[in-house]
Amino acid sequence: MQEFEEFSTLLQRPVEEKNREFQRQGRLKHMISASQLSIPLLEKLCHSANVIRKMSREPKGNERLRKLLAHKRAMLYFTQPSTRTFLSFMAACQILGLTCNEVRDPKTSSEVKRESRMDSIRMFSSYFDVIIMRSQIADFAECCAYLMNDLEKQERRSVPIINAGVGSDEHPTQALLDMYTIIRTFDFDESSESRPSRLADLRRSYPNLASGPAHKTYAFVGDIGRGRTVRSLATVLAQYDGVKMFFISPDHEVLQLDDSLRQSLKKSGVVVEEFNSLETDYQGQSLLSQIDCLYMTRIQREHNSEQAEKEIAAIDLEPYRLTSDRVAQLKSYTPILHPFPRDSVIGEIPTEIDSDPRAMYFRQARNGMWARAALLVHLFDAADSLHLAYSEVMPA
Amino acid sequence: MQEFEEFSTLLQRPVEEKNREFQRQGRLKHMISASQLSIPLLEKLCHSANVIRKMSREPKGNERLRKLLAHKRAMLYFTQPSTRTFLSFMAACQILGLTCNEVRDPKTSSEVKRESRMDSIRMFSSYFDVIIMRSQIADFAECCAYLMNDLEKQERRSVPIINAGVGSDEHPTQALLDMYTIIRTFDFDESSESRPSRLADLRRSYPNLASGPAHKTYAFVGDIGRGRTVRSLATVLAQYDGVKMFFISPDHEVLQLDDSLRQSLKKSGVVVEEFNSLETDYQGQSLLSQIDCLYMTRIQREHNSEQAEKEIAAIDLEPYRLTSDRVAQLKSYTPILHPFPRDSVIGEIPTEIDSDPRAMYFRQARNGMWARAALLVHLFDAADSLHLAYSEVMPA
Amino acid sequence: MQEFEEFSTLLQRPVEEKNREFQRQGRLKHMISASQLSIPLLEKLCHSANVIRKMSREPKGNERLRKLLAHKRAMLYFTQPSTRTFLSFMAACQILGLTCNEVRDPKTSSEVKRESRMDSIRMFSSYFDVIIMRSQIADFAECCAYLMNDLEKQERRSVPIINAGVGSDEHPTQALLDMYTIIRTFDFDESSESRPSRLADLRRSYPNLASGPAHKTYAFVGDIGRGRTVRSLATVLAQYDGVKMFFISPDHEVLQLDDSLRQSLKKSGVVVEEFNSLETDYQGQSLLSQIDCLYMTRIQREHNSEQAEKEIAAIDLEPYRLTSDRVAQLKSYTPILHPFPRDSVIGEIPTEIDSDPRAMYFRQARNGMWARAALLVHLFDAADSLHLAYSEVMPA
Repeated sequence: MQEFEEFSTLLQRPVEEKNREFQRQGRLKHMISASQLSIPLLEKLCHSANVIRKMSREPKGNERLRKLLAHKRAMLYFTQPSTRTFLSFMAACQILGLTCNEVRDPKTSSEVKRESRMDSIRMFSSYFDVIIMRSQIADFAECCAYLMNDLEKQERRSVPIINAGVGSDEHPTQALLDMYTIIRTFDFDESSESRPSRLADLRRSYPNLASGPAHKTYAFVGDIGRGRTVRSLATVLAQYDGVKMFFISPDHEVLQLDDSLRQSLKKSGVVVEEFNSLETDYQGQSLLSQIDCLYMTRIQREHNSEQAEKEIAAIDLEPYRLTSDRVAQLKSYTPILHPFPRDSVIGEIPTEIDSDPRAMYFRQARNGMWARAALLVHLFDAADSLHLAYSEVMPA
Repeated sequence: MQEFEEFSTLLQRPVEEKNREFQRQGRLKHMISASQLSIPLLEKLCHSANVIRKMSREPKGNERLRKLLAHKRAMLYFTQPSTRTFLSFMAACQILGLTCNEVRDPKTSSEVKRESRMDSIRMFSSYFDVIIMRSQIADFAECCAYLMNDLEKQERRSVPIINAGVGSDEHPTQALLDMYTIIRTFDFDESSESRPSRLADLRRSYPNLASGPAHKTYAFVGDIGRGRTVRSLATVLAQYDGVKMFFISPDHEVLQLDDSLRQSLKKSGVVVEEFNSLETDYQGQSLLSQIDCLYMTRIQREHNSEQAEKEIAAIDLEPYRLTSDRVAQLKSYTPILHPFPRDSVIGEIPTEIDSDPRAMYFRQARNGMWARAALLVHLFDAADSLHLAYSEVMPA
Repeated sequence: MQEFEEFSTLLQRPVEEKNREFQRQGRLKHMISASQLSIPLLEKLCHSANVIRKMSREPKGNERLRKLLAHKRAMLYFTQPSTRTFLSFMAACQILGLTCNEVRDPKTSSEVKRESRMDSIRMFSSYFDVIIMRSQIADFAECCAYLMNDLEKQERRSVPIINAGVGSDEHPTQALLDMYTIIRTFDFDESSESRPSRLADLRRSYPNLASGPAHKTYAFVGDIGRGRTVRSLATVLAQYDGVKMFFISPDHEVLQLDDSLRQSLKKSGVVVEEFNSLETDYQGQSLLSQIDCLYMTRIQREHNSEQAEKEIAAIDLEPYRLTSDRVAQLKSYTPILHPFPRDSVIGEIPTEIDSDPRAMYFRQARNGMWARAALLVHLFDAADSLHLAYSEVMPA
C-alpha cells in the first residue's frame, strides 16, 4: 500500500530483527506474528490461560478476573468479517473486565471523509488502550505497531497492537490457541488439575508417548497452500524437537504446501511428508495410524480466483474428509482439531464425529477465549497480578 | 428446514411433552413457547420483576442487581431485525450486570463460509452463557434447545436458549411482559407498594371488580390473524377462569381470528366473540363499555403477500382506530395496551390518547425490561439470591 | 419536518428563551445548542474534565470514576455516521461506568414498521437514562428535548437529550471540547498540575500574553461557510473580551464566512477579518505571525451539490494548507487545532507537522473524551459526587 510507504524499509527486514521491536525486556509490546511465539512465551501464556480458566469457574475467581483489566478499554477493529475470532476476543476481554468497542464496517465514515488509515488508528489509540485488528490489507498490523513505537519514542500516547488476522499470511492468535490445545492435550503431568483423566489412562497404555508437543507426528489435511492457520501453526511447532509433519492435500498448486514453508520447516529440522489422500500407507503402515495430532481444515472458497474456483470445484474431495472408518484407524488418543468454521456442504468433518472423545474442535474454540485472555494479561503486564489473585482466592 | 431434519420427530410431539424437556424440576431450562407460562410460573416471574423494579430505584438495590449475574455473558442473536425487543433485552441484561454480545447481521461471515446454523449456535454456546435469539426461521429456537439438551446428556457445555421471536407463531417474552402489565394493573392488594393509587380508588368504585386476570373481558383489535403477539397472549390468558375475549378485526381471512386459535380458546373455556368494528353493540350495550382490558395492534404490512397487500390496502381501517370519543366510552380503569411499534400513518392509537391515564403502552414497554430481567434470573436459578439481596438492602 | 409540526412555534422563539427551558436552576437539563455554553458553565465543565482526566490516571481514581454513573444506561442514537464522535462518547460513558447501547442504522426496523420518530425516542427513554443523538434531520434534538419536557410536566419518565451533531448548524459538544483544549492551552496558572511546562516557559518569553481565551487572535482556515464546528466555536469564543478572528477561505460563497455569522460576531464585539490565503500580510506584518490559536478545517466534500463540487474542485487549495515553512512563521506557542478527520488527499495538515509541539489536534481529540464525560457528570448532577471522590482518593 502506498500509505505504508514510510514503513517499507522496516517491513523488509529479517523477522528476528523486527520481532525485537515488538517486545521490551522479554515481554511482548505488540502481537504481530506467530514467529513471536517462542517456546518460553508459549509456556507462560498457557500457564496463564490455565489459571484464568480455573478462576473463571469459581465465583470469587471470576469476580477477581473481572477486576484485573477493568480500567482498560479495547478497540476491536475488524474490517474483514470474522464472527468467531471477533466473539472470542470479545469474550476474552469480558472475562478480564476490559470494556469493548468495535468498528466493523469496512467503510467507516472517516474513510468516506478521506482520513488516512494511520489517522484512524491514532484516533483509536486516543480513546482506547489496546487495538485488536483484523484486515485484508497486508502488513497493516505491523505498520500500526511501527506507528505506536514512533509515538512512544516521542513520549506520546502509544498502545499495544494485536494482529487478529491481517493480510493472508499471519493469524498468530489462532496459532496460540491451537498450541494451547495441543499443549493441554499432551500435558501428562499427574499433578495438573487440568489433565483430562482419559489422557492419564492413555499414558499408561502408551509408555513411549512423551509429554508435550515435541517428538510427535502432526497431520494437516485439506487446504494447505492457503490458510494462514496452517502456516502459523506449523511454524510454531517447528521449534520443538523431533517433530514430523504430514501434509495431505489435493494435487493442485493452490492447495498444496508451498515451497517457502516447506523449505523453512526442513531448515528447522522438521521431517516433512506430503500425500494426496488420507487413505494411504506410509512406511508400510496406514498413514492414519501414525498420527499423534490431526489438524483438519476447510477448503477456502472465498479466496479463489475464478479459474482456481473452477479447477478446485472439479476435484474429488472425498480423500480429505473424515469418516467414522477413518477416525477408527486413528490412535485412541489422537486429538482432532479444526480452526473452524467447517464447511457443512463439503463436510470435511461430518457431525457424526462430534461425539467421539477425540473430537477436540469445540473445546479448541473455547480454548481461544482463555488463550486470548492470557495474551491480553501479558500485553498489559498483569501476569503477576493474575497469579497473586489466583493464590488469594483459589482453594489450595 | 433440511438442517433441522434430525429434530423432526421431536418437533412433531404434543406441546406438553415437549415442554417437559424445557424444564428441570419445575424450573425452566429454556424459554421456547408461551405455553410454558403456567399461572404459578407467571406469579413467580411477576414477583421477581416487581422486586427488580423496586431495587433498581434505590442506589444500593441497583448496585446489588448489577452484581447478580455479572459473571454471565449473553449472546443476542437477532437475525430478524427488531429494535424494540433487542433493546429491551439489552437493558434487562444490563440491569443484572450480564455482559451483552450481539450478532445481528443475517449474513454472518460464518454463513458465507457455509458453516451450519447448529455449528454457529454451538460456537455461541462455547463463548457465552445464554443465547437470546430472534429469527424468521420456524422452529429454530426449539431445535437449539434440543441441541443443548443433547450436549447436556453428553456432559458437554450447554446453555439456556430464549426465544425472542422465532418464526411466525411464538413470541413468548412479549406474552410475558403483556401478562406482567395486566397482572400489575389488576393487582388490588392494598399492601403492595407497586399498586398505582389510581387503581386503589377504582376498586372502591367497582366493588365487583376482582383482583387478578381472571373473570375479565379482553378485547384484541386490528391484526388478529397474524401477529404472534395476540396468539401468544390469548393462549396464556385462556388458563385463567371466567375469561371472555372480543376479537375485533376487518372481514379478511388474513386478519381475522384463525380457526385453530378459536377452537383451542373455546376448548379452554374462553367465551370468544368476534366483531368487525369497535363501534358496535354487544348484548344491548356499547361494546367499548364492556371491556376490562383493551389490546390494540398494528396492521402488519411487512408480512403481506402482494395480493393480500392490495386487498388490505382497500380496507377502511377507521373502525379499528382509537379516537378520543371511543376512549371516553371505555371504563375508567380499562388499560390500553399495544405491543408497539404503532403505525404513525394508519394511527391505530393517535398521539392525543398518550396523555390519557389509561394509556399503558409506554409503561408496558418499560415493563418488558423488568419481565425479561426476571426471566433471566429464573433461567440462571438466581431467584433466591435476588430475594436475599432484596431483604438485605431494601428498607422494610 | 411535518413530524415536528407540533413544535414549530417553540422552534421559532429567540435562542435565549429556548435555552431557559433546557436548564433547571442553572444546571443543564439538555445539551442542545452551543449557545448554552456560557463562560461560567464552560469553567465548571473544564474543571470537571480536569478532575476526570487526573483521576483516570490513578488506579483508585479510575475505579471510583467507573462507579460514578454505573447505575445509568446511555443510548447513542447515531443515524448520521460519525466514527469519531461516536467513539469519543462511548469512551466518555465507559470512563464513568455508564452502560452504552447504540442504534446506528438509519433504517431501523421500527421505521420500516412506520413508527414515528418521536415514538422511537420515547421507546429509548423507556429503557435508557440519557439519549445522545446525531442526525441529519434539522431540529431533531431540540424537538426531543421538548418531548422530554412535556413528559416531565405530566410526571412521566423523562431523560436528558444530548445533541451530538444534528442538522447542519450545531455541534455543541465539539465546541465544548475545542474550548476545553483552548482553555487548557492558555491556562498559565502556575499551581495547576495540568499546565504543560512548555507553556510556563512561554509565559516568561511573552510577558504580555494573558491567561485564558480572552484578548487573543483566532484564525479559522478552510471551510468556513459550512461546517457547524467553526460556527459553534466562533459563537462561544465571541463571549470573551478582546477577541479578534481571522477567517481564511477560498473566494467561493459556499466556503466563505456567511453573513449571519459575520454580523452576529461583530455585534458581540469581535474584530472580524477575512482573507483568501495564509500567505498574506495584515497591518504590515505576516498574518501567520499574529495568530494566537490556529483552527484548521477540512474542505467538506460530502455536503457539496454537483455544481458546487465542480467549482470547488477547480479551486487551488494550496493557500489553505499548512507547510513546515508556514508553521515556522507561527508564534512558538500557537496551538494548531483541527476538528478531524483531516483529508489525506488534500492534506490541509501534512503528517510532517504531527511531531511539532504546537500540533495539538490529537490531544484535542483525546480532550473530547474528558469534556464529554464532564458534560455527562453535569447532566446527571453528579459533579459534587465527582469532586468528593477526587478529594477522597487523590493524593493532595
